[in-house]
Amino acid sequence: MSADGNSGLQLRSLIKKSGELEISLVNVPTKEPSADEVVVRIEATPINPSDLGLLTGAADMTTAKASGTRDAPVITAKVGEAGMRAMAGRLDESMPVGNEGAGVVIRTGSSQAAKALMGKTVAIIGGAMYAQYRTIAAADCLVLPEGTTPAEGASCFVNPLTSLGMVETMRREGHKALVHTAAASNLGQMLNKICLKDDIGLVNIVRSPQQAEILRKIGAKYVVDSASPTFMADLTNALSETGATLAFDAIGGGRLAGQILTCMEAAIGRNAKVYSRYGSNVHKQVYIYGSLDTRPVELNRAFGMAWGVGGWLLFPFLMKIGPADGQKLRERIAAELKTTFASHYTRVVSLQEALDLSNLAVYAKRATGEKFLINPNKGG
Amino acid sequence: MSADGNSGLQLRSLIKKSGELEISLVNVPTKEPSADEVVVRIEATPINPSDLGLLTGAADMTTAKASGTRDAPVITAKVGEAGMRAMAGRLDESMPVGNEGAGVVIRTGSSQAAKALMGKTVAIIGGAMYAQYRTIAAADCLVLPEGTTPAEGASCFVNPLTSLGMVETMRREGHKALVHTAAASNLGQMLNKICLKDDIGLVNIVRSPQQAEILRKIGAKYVVDSASPTFMADLTNALSETGATLAFDAIGGGRLAGQILTCMEAAIGRNAKVYSRYGSNVHKQVYIYGSLDTRPVELNRAFGMAWGVGGWLLFPFLMKIGPADGQKLRERIAAELKTTFASHYTRVVSLQEALDLSNLAVYAKRATGEKFLINPNKGG
Repeated sequence: MSADGNSGLQLRSLIKKSGELEISLVNVPTKEPSADEVVVRIEATPINPSDLGLLTGAADMTTAKASGTRDAPVITAKVGEAGMRAMAGRLDESMPVGNEGAGVVIRTGSSQAAKALMGKTVAIIGGAMYAQYRTIAAADCLVLPEGTTPAEGASCFVNPLTSLGMVETMRREGHKALVHTAAASNLGQMLNKICLKDDIGLVNIVRSPQQAEILRKIGAKYVVDSASPTFMADLTNALSETGATLAFDAIGGGRLAGQILTCMEAAIGRNAKVYSRYGSNVHKQVYIYGSLDTRPVELNRAFGMAWGVGGWLLFPFLMKIGPADGQKLRERIAAELKTTFASHYTRVVSLQEALDLSNLAVYAKRATGEKFLINPNKGG
Repeated sequence: MSADGNSGLQLRSLIKKSGELEISLVNVPTKEPSADEVVVRIEATPINPSDLGLLTGAADMTTAKASGTRDAPVITAKVGEAGMRAMAGRLDESMPVGNEGAGVVIRTGSSQAAKALMGKTVAIIGGAMYAQYRTIAAADCLVLPEGTTPAEGASCFVNPLTSLGMVETMRREGHKALVHTAAASNLGQMLNKICLKDDIGLVNIVRSPQQAEILRKIGAKYVVDSASPTFMADLTNALSETGATLAFDAIGGGRLAGQILTCMEAAIGRNAKVYSRYGSNVHKQVYIYGSLDTRPVELNRAFGMAWGVGGWLLFPFLMKIGPADGQKLRERIAAELKTTFASHYTRVVSLQEALDLSNLAVYAKRATGEKFLINPNKGG
């Protein structure tokens, strides 16, 4: 690492053919900016669930061990046999990590667009953010409003665009209200704020009374607990009241997606006039965007024929709506960064501290309410 | 029943609250045609898998018993507890059966369009075809080409429109080849004829070497047997060669839909250049349109994030494409009725014979190669 930013630490995740995950810090030269690029000194980059997929991969983190030095810590962990099959595409490739972050532009290329960013605080997305410096296209920088810190702008993209993307998908696919699972997450809270502001019905599915309480405190109207014995009835009531026929599911495995479709069909059926053995003709959709439960999805198809289950990802969604509509979403995020789209972190850590076993044990659990922010230039 | 068609026999299916299915024949007055309607004397109406859902419902046909008289036979069978839940919407309602059929117009309303059909042989769709007479809108009649018998035109709609609908869905959703399961069925053979004629890659999945042989005989190029130990590899090869990323699945339950998606992703991955932990960004789709296996669908999600599984039905598809495009499909069917869209039947039975236990035992099995045609005016 060097004060002029010519080189710096970068976090790397490597899964070896031998079945071992290794997370380490390496000192890499900073890529010289081309005419249209800038160098950003990263000062804040969140650990999102979507980062953990790359950071720890399919490794069993209960087997994690620490080695190396205080300045250059190394984490190793075992990857099971099934996990190794899923990792086949990345074996023996040392991969940088970190989807998004924010920092200050310290060097620029020769173009006007690049030079205009000198000294500005910007939010960026594009991978390899768990690093002290990141060279990136000027066009990919979102200049943060005056008075915004890197920490405040670090989570500008993934959660805000994902939650806005859910609402936008709802509108484009002709639904009038939404269901969200693992709903007390940072993302889930953000979605509640959007739906409250935009007057959209949102049914929150949580897995404990504590999570329900988090959401009720921020004004959520429909919260149902999947651990409750009255879950199916509660969910059907909420679906009947909101008319929600679209769900975004972060859980993935097990019977939840099918239960949601079953309750949607039951809610629709309350108003049905005639028998149809194919069920209602109202299309019911569940998009799976996470995998908190890695078991297979199990669908009992007790919900007629007008249904769909599929994967949903932010980047294909952005590709589909195109740059102009994507820009509108970004503008809203910038305007409401300290309100609707504010993120909260439980800890701010350095790159070295991110590789501390006690911290890793906390954030790798993806527990609701725990959210880490890395400052790669913390302490220098 | 009366020779003038003022009344006639109609097949009825009733599921009683007591948990019993009753299939019977009742004599009903023929509805007088309004100005724009005609009365068709039905002479041929097929027993499609889609009719059996209404005819026998969720009843356990191994418990079927015959009673009544030779002229007015009655079949009864038990409906299990789980079945009764699925039947909740139709309890104690005596329902007519039969999606499609063909016959001769014997009486018409006063409009020009209706009068023009007098004496014509027409194909019709709209339910209640297992009857001697059916009153229907003139606009819903497809006049069969000169020299076509009712038997030849009886299956003009369900299988031809469904197989054309699959190909049309493929084109509209941007896929270039197709997968079909339970592929040796009457519908599957028709789909092969269309794809051979239109030069579309079609991967046929069957469940036995005998079924594979049926398809190879009619020129099918890609036939894979899901009972073979090399199924996954065979399917991946066929998908790689055809580029198929869309499947229509008549099986429904179990792991087949997920296996198809897994093999599609593997076939796509053969040409992948860079690792993406979200899998390929090529959308892979399975539409479930049948339920030969009533177990839950089980998806292990070993196929990235760009995927969808959903229900597919003919009528919503026709609604979606609209009447003009629907008419084009009908015109093609009429033009190729004796070639591409020819149906073959193993037996022609009267309404009474359709309620014969030995016949019921055969057609209720939905066995490949067995197809019944009812002639409600046979002998009578």
